[in-house]
Amino acid sequence: MNEINIMSIQLEPTKSIKGIKPSYIREILAATTKKGMISLAGGLPDESFFPMQIIEQAMDEIKSDSSLFQYGSTQGHPALLKYIQDTYVPNKDEDALICTGSQQALDLIARAFINPNDQIVMEAPSYLGALQVFELAQAKIHCVEPNNDFTGPNIEALEVIFKNNDIKFFYAVPDFHNPTGICWSLQTRKNVALLCEKYQVYFIEDAPYRELRFTGEELPLVSSLYKNTITLRSFSKIATPGIRLGALIAKKDLINTMITIKQTSDLHSSVPMQALLLKLLTHENFESHFDKMRRHYQNKHDIMIKSINKQLNGLAQASAVAGGMFVWLKTDLIASENIETFARMLLTKNVAVVPSNVFYPQDFSIEKQQPGLRLNFTHATADNIEIAIKVLKEEMTKLSKV
Amino acid sequence: MNEINIMSIQLEPTKSIKGIKPSYIREILAATTKKGMISLAGGLPDESFFPMQIIEQAMDEIKSDSSLFQYGSTQGHPALLKYIQDTYVPNKDEDALICTGSQQALDLIARAFINPNDQIVMEAPSYLGALQVFELAQAKIHCVEPNNDFTGPNIEALEVIFKNNDIKFFYAVPDFHNPTGICWSLQTRKNVALLCEKYQVYFIEDAPYRELRFTGEELPLVSSLYKNTITLRSFSKIATPGIRLGALIAKKDLINTMITIKQTSDLHSSVPMQALLLKLLTHENFESHFDKMRRHYQNKHDIMIKSINKQLNGLAQASAVAGGMFVWLKTDLIASENIETFARMLLTKNVAVVPSNVFYPQDFSIEKQQPGLRLNFTHATADNIEIAIKVLKEEMTKLSKV
Repeated sequence: MNEINIMSIQLEPTKSIKGIKPSYIREILAATTKKGMISLAGGLPDESFFPMQIIEQAMDEIKSDSSLFQYGSTQGHPALLKYIQDTYVPNKDEDALICTGSQQALDLIARAFINPNDQIVMEAPSYLGALQVFELAQAKIHCVEPNNDFTGPNIEALEVIFKNNDIKFFYAVPDFHNPTGICWSLQTRKNVALLCEKYQVYFIEDAPYRELRFTGEELPLVSSLYKNTITLRSFSKIATPGIRLGALIAKKDLINTMITIKQTSDLHSSVPMQALLLKLLTHENFESHFDKMRRHYQNKHDIMIKSINKQLNGLAQASAVAGGMFVWLKTDLIASENIETFARMLLTKNVAVVPSNVFYPQDFSIEKQQPGLRLNFTHATADNIEIAIKVLKEEMTKLSKV
Repeated sequence: MNEINIMSIQLEPTKSIKGIKPSYIREILAATTKKGMISLAGGLPDESFFPMQIIEQAMDEIKSDSSLFQYGSTQGHPALLKYIQDTYVPNKDEDALICTGSQQALDLIARAFINPNDQIVMEAPSYLGALQVFELAQAKIHCVEPNNDFTGPNIEALEVIFKNNDIKFFYAVPDFHNPTGICWSLQTRKNVALLCEKYQVYFIEDAPYRELRFTGEELPLVSSLYKNTITLRSFSKIATPGIRLGALIAKKDLINTMITIKQTSDLHSSVPMQALLLKLLTHENFESHFDKMRRHYQNKHDIMIKSINKQLNGLAQASAVAGGMFVWLKTDLIASENIETFARMLLTKNVAVVPSNVFYPQDFSIEKQQPGLRLNFTHATADNIEIAIKVLKEEMTKLSKV
């Protein structure tokens, strides 16, 4: 059979995909697999603290159940769905939808409710994966910057945006924000709830790091203070990320709309993985394992902060955080337009970090960005964290002498 | 903490979601879980033929490997990706992308390359999941109906559509079409390749049932006859559907564009499930297991066709198929506008089937639709298939006497 010899047709990507920021972070994350590289770049949990004993036991329990390998329900594996409804859905008019990671949850919200040119507000800097979702949906993105107290967004600036624009959604990560590590104070939560009410803005509460608190008291979800909220839950940090499971909590009619989109997107999420997750979450040893992991993360966090305070004194500053995976290293030595070059240079010294420019929308003026580096403290070993901070010291010292 | 008592904000679904046909099939499939229901409705493989022994062994092999539970690569788990590249990617300028089921593969194509009002061609009737994807992408859908020889689409009609419109994609299921069971002849494949070349139309070849051939010789993929093709592979029918894995084969630059969308959609597909799939596909007993399953499906198919010929003589007709999961029952007793009512009535007799109207786009005139029922022969037991056909006989006989 001879192949017909013809010219290639050039397929143009859609208009919407052209709006997506090119992902420098993929390049950086690809470099982190290089041997000898110390990565503070990704938002990766510590593999050595995955609950492998519980996983092995759970895998043994599900491996012979053929019904788990059949097509499943779009909304979720019934047993896991019930657990999530019981645990995470406080109101009768709400329901849950199990997603292929909370990344899919975000994408479903955007596909279900955001038309091109709909206006939304995000924190700036903000989670890159959310930026990409909203850019792909061709939303008009407004940004609110953090206040100076490390307690959340600047409320006055937020009100100005709400007042002057027809805002549909405010998307935020109130618990241990990515990339800044900020945990909103109770007052910030109340203020945001009041503002959303006043200006009739729907709130998207992304809470992937909420359970990773290692100090201080848990604060209420904004969704417990304000009705018009969609909440995203991730099991990547609680259980493991490779299984790709998250959940969406929202009013029932919104869930129904999003089920239609999920059906079109992937029919449903992996059933054996959903069964595995339920076994993990309900295992008698899971809570104690999780406590151990939190203490382990706290220890690495403390080592990183001490190391920054000692080594980078006068060069850069980072606030301690009460949980999550990241600290935000601010520096006046490097202008925002040079921060990516600096991060790329660090790769040649075998240290991977993520530069601040990655976390701003495409049209956010680079001069107005807060120059910084996102440092992850959960993945690298304590020793490697200290080595990486020393490398940062050397390279920043060189800059300070120029 | 008092909840702020406010009015609900009504979130309107996007314009694109309003274009999606309401899914009657979900209602029907939901009814199939009712006790005592014989379902010929879904496209479900036979659970009793899942390779559970091989799955158990594979689960034992992966359950202790913590690296499989970490975040993975968007394009695919490297070991599975290499296997798929070696097995399914014949050309150097092409590559593969592993997806959360081939449903996601379709969705990624649409999101990457279809702008609102781009024109595409589908077979009519056609796979409902594809219809929903293209409707959500707001494509303008043209339909080509099957010829009278059960050998594929009407080529003359296809050329008229290609000639008179600026068509971007032709989406088709050449091997054991859903819902008709038609397998395109070699001549049809060549004719379609030539037409696509002549009118510069990109071909999307969806091949989920290709490996389910139980009689006759395998015919070449259209993608082996024509360069401008994206091919979709599903592992739902080869391995099991619950693991939600499929793959996309396309030119490298297209794969790269779709990787960006996949990253936004769900970051990557479940890594443990990808590792499991590789173990299944490369297991020494997998081929012999699969042969057994094909013979089992052939047996059920033969029973269904015999039963139709015997019981429904003069009431309805179905052509035997050489593979896949479905036969298409045509009848002149029921007009297209009544076929759904008939299918709903059958539910009250504990028989579930899918009526033809479900497989046509929203704006396809109901009078021009071919009235019929899609009957699945892989899921129900042989005994239940015979009982269901008898119920069909009783109900159709009643109609023929009116």
